[in-house]
Amino acid sequence: MPDDQQSGAAPIQPVLDAMRASLGPAGVLTDPADLAPYLTDWRGLYHGEAIAVLRPASTEEVSACVRLCAEHGIAIIPQGGNTSMVGGATPEARPRQVVLSLSRMNRVRQVDTADMTMTVEAGLILTRAQQVAAEHGVFFPLSLGAEGSAMIGGLLSTNAGGNMTVRYGNARDLMLGLEVVLPDGAVIHGLRRLRKDNTGYALRHLFVGAEGTLGIITAAVLRLFPAARETATALCAVPSEDAALALFRRFRAADEGAVRAFEYMSGQGMRLVMANIEGAAMPFATPGEHYVLVDLSASREGAGLRGMMEEVLEAAMEAGEVADAALAESEAQRVAIWRLREEHPEAQKRAGASVKNDVSVPVSAVPELIRRASAACLALIPGSRPVPFGHMGDGNIHMNLAQPEAMSATDFLARSHDIMDCVNAVVRDLGGSFSAEHGIGRLKTDMMEEWRGGAELAAMRAIKAALDPQGIMNPGKVLPHA
Amino acid sequence: MPDDQQSGAAPIQPVLDAMRASLGPAGVLTDPADLAPYLTDWRGLYHGEAIAVLRPASTEEVSACVRLCAEHGIAIIPQGGNTSMVGGATPEARPRQVVLSLSRMNRVRQVDTADMTMTVEAGLILTRAQQVAAEHGVFFPLSLGAEGSAMIGGLLSTNAGGNMTVRYGNARDLMLGLEVVLPDGAVIHGLRRLRKDNTGYALRHLFVGAEGTLGIITAAVLRLFPAARETATALCAVPSEDAALALFRRFRAADEGAVRAFEYMSGQGMRLVMANIEGAAMPFATPGEHYVLVDLSASREGAGLRGMMEEVLEAAMEAGEVADAALAESEAQRVAIWRLREEHPEAQKRAGASVKNDVSVPVSAVPELIRRASAACLALIPGSRPVPFGHMGDGNIHMNLAQPEAMSATDFLARSHDIMDCVNAVVRDLGGSFSAEHGIGRLKTDMMEEWRGGAELAAMRAIKAALDPQGIMNPGKVLPHA
Repeated sequence: MPDDQQSGAAPIQPVLDAMRASLGPAGVLTDPADLAPYLTDWRGLYHGEAIAVLRPASTEEVSACVRLCAEHGIAIIPQGGNTSMVGGATPEARPRQVVLSLSRMNRVRQVDTADMTMTVEAGLILTRAQQVAAEHGVFFPLSLGAEGSAMIGGLLSTNAGGNMTVRYGNARDLMLGLEVVLPDGAVIHGLRRLRKDNTGYALRHLFVGAEGTLGIITAAVLRLFPAARETATALCAVPSEDAALALFRRFRAADEGAVRAFEYMSGQGMRLVMANIEGAAMPFATPGEHYVLVDLSASREGAGLRGMMEEVLEAAMEAGEVADAALAESEAQRVAIWRLREEHPEAQKRAGASVKNDVSVPVSAVPELIRRASAACLALIPGSRPVPFGHMGDGNIHMNLAQPEAMSATDFLARSHDIMDCVNAVVRDLGGSFSAEHGIGRLKTDMMEEWRGGAELAAMRAIKAALDPQGIMNPGKVLPHA
Repeated sequence: MPDDQQSGAAPIQPVLDAMRASLGPAGVLTDPADLAPYLTDWRGLYHGEAIAVLRPASTEEVSACVRLCAEHGIAIIPQGGNTSMVGGATPEARPRQVVLSLSRMNRVRQVDTADMTMTVEAGLILTRAQQVAAEHGVFFPLSLGAEGSAMIGGLLSTNAGGNMTVRYGNARDLMLGLEVVLPDGAVIHGLRRLRKDNTGYALRHLFVGAEGTLGIITAAVLRLFPAARETATALCAVPSEDAALALFRRFRAADEGAVRAFEYMSGQGMRLVMANIEGAAMPFATPGEHYVLVDLSASREGAGLRGMMEEVLEAAMEAGEVADAALAESEAQRVAIWRLREEHPEAQKRAGASVKNDVSVPVSAVPELIRRASAACLALIPGSRPVPFGHMGDGNIHMNLAQPEAMSATDFLARSHDIMDCVNAVVRDLGGSFSAEHGIGRLKTDMMEEWRGGAELAAMRAIKAALDPQGIMNPGKVLPHA
């Protein structure tokens, strides 16, 4: 936190003037109407205050801003696309703080298809990064719902996951090097395009996932991959959670590298999608309580994924692990199948209030997680509707709960913390995590003591104090107030 | 460094007695003959001192040892298989320090083929880890020359690389969770078997590659992979360094996931192997100045790697990128081809003195690195023999230099630092790293200021001071003396 003893009394205007001198008038917003969109998250759940929004256009300008803030004890909330699910990019209600938007730092500095790397700035929007890769004939595999707004800096700062993590890993695994402005304004020039570099502590891995509390990522070297030459997508009705896991194991055993996504959906979730999303249609008649979406891809010509898919599904049907399945016969059908999965959040929203639990467990424990957490939620709130869905291949299930039809949204949401505790008790028992891909932000700082307390949290606090002794970087996020 | 002001005068015997009470008599070695193998590295290049070697058999015992050392200002050198190339596990000549060997902590705690994870202790030898995976029908892909001695804890502490990094990544990428004893004896219980877990700073990534200077890794969760059902291996003579890179790009484009290893060797290196290694034989008659070893594997039944290999090589020959090639027709031939690569270090040793440079550059710059560094070395020491070889697919070349036949080993080795500087100047110009996979240890601490100085080294020092304020963990390694 800014030290008000030292600097609280100092007037803010001269600092803003100095920032305007650095960034130009377009680089410093102070009009309340201009500030508003930066002070609230996209879902309108979190609000905060700031004396200004800074919009630097270069690493040097970020450094100059941070240096001025450090000198004057002004806190900084770094912000990319502002798509956090946990309030990670929204300021709290505190005095003497600014939002620092990376949106003007959106250049592609280099693409190298021999190295298979792309060096980009923090403000580049994810879909643009995907496009740039495609224009060079290669593939950048990070993909998630918010990709039209989310920016590379925020995606790395939160170690974003998404739909293809089972094959390509999290954002962390797609990053080779970082450029970072530290809390004193010093710059780490770590944009190394190297696959191997064992020269001291892996600082880049510390900034990834730190949610802007240790410094500001201003640019990154990202890994690229050969484009897919073949894909195969299927929706399957399966008789149980265990059958879904068994099917995942079958595909993984059949071809380790082919499984690009393996997503679980419940009958409840599918019924919500059918009832609330226009044009959504099941590709087969068999009703079910459990579904999986399998997406295969290969960069190899003539990989024969379609044949492999059919063989695996046939064997699984014989073993009673699949009740029905539909293979996409066209790109339109592929999109339609994916839409059933991707409209889950929207369908839940239209069906009323819901409480989201982004949790993970060891892959082997996913069936038990779904069964036990669903039962526990139903026991806690009779009539509520568990809607578990998500990345089964990563052990990451969105263990969401939709409100009972006979209950008011307000009454239901008043139980949010009880519901989260109820799900988390199961997750904990299964050796899981209370935040798989959304991070901590403002929402989950209170859980850190219970889940990561002791030596782990103490080490995190020591590192925070060492790199940001004034506590000016994204205060109130990740670490609970001491 | 231990604070001698506070504790230097305190007698050591009561501390050793307390350790014996904790670890039992077999857990504390003090006889000089027993200590000797722990005080020298395997090549006999580094030597040091210690008052005892501690051999704890459990995490609790490691914690008890570290707590006693912290209380009495005794420094600790963690040691696994003692196979460091840079003196990372060998003590310096200092008073009041102990070697802490992890060799008795060698249990496999869990193997789960649904999760595809294996939880093992730090003292498990790498070949044993590979065997355990194979016994469960799966594959642990870390593989390197020292695998018969190197232990998991050391391999993670140094973020080891090896032969299959191009496909599976470094040791870091094979790790999901860690158990770590901190410099005050507190234990981080981070053995989470999770593919996704965004809950605060990624401490595990800080301990990986820290070479034991921030704490002691006592156990780890490792990732497992489906076993290969098909492999294909070839040795190729190629006309130039550029042709070698072009061939790598061809294979990567043909099938992103199939390339398990892509190794470069020079004509000079091959001639040294032929002259010095009994039974080594070239699989074709065409002499060449450049060779590559390609190793493909697939977990898929009927993947047709052999056909793919032939197609790619045929196209490369037509394009003038391959002069001759031999495909392994049997496991014996596969082993024989790999032996040509793996005997490079032994062949160099038998040919006299050599200076090793474990460097990396962006993959696209490997041809230029080999040409420019070789020319620079020849200009520096006429008659010397550059022997570049290694992991072209990772941009990691062992840019070694063998002594001139007409020079004494002593005279040649006296130029070691000039040679390293000469190679590193080229590496630096190409945006590379002075240590790709061997780490810093004792050998390269002096280079840290030049290469990682400024904000990066300052941040590393701040983290070191935060987690190990007494400086008792592996002093003199990684970070240069301030």
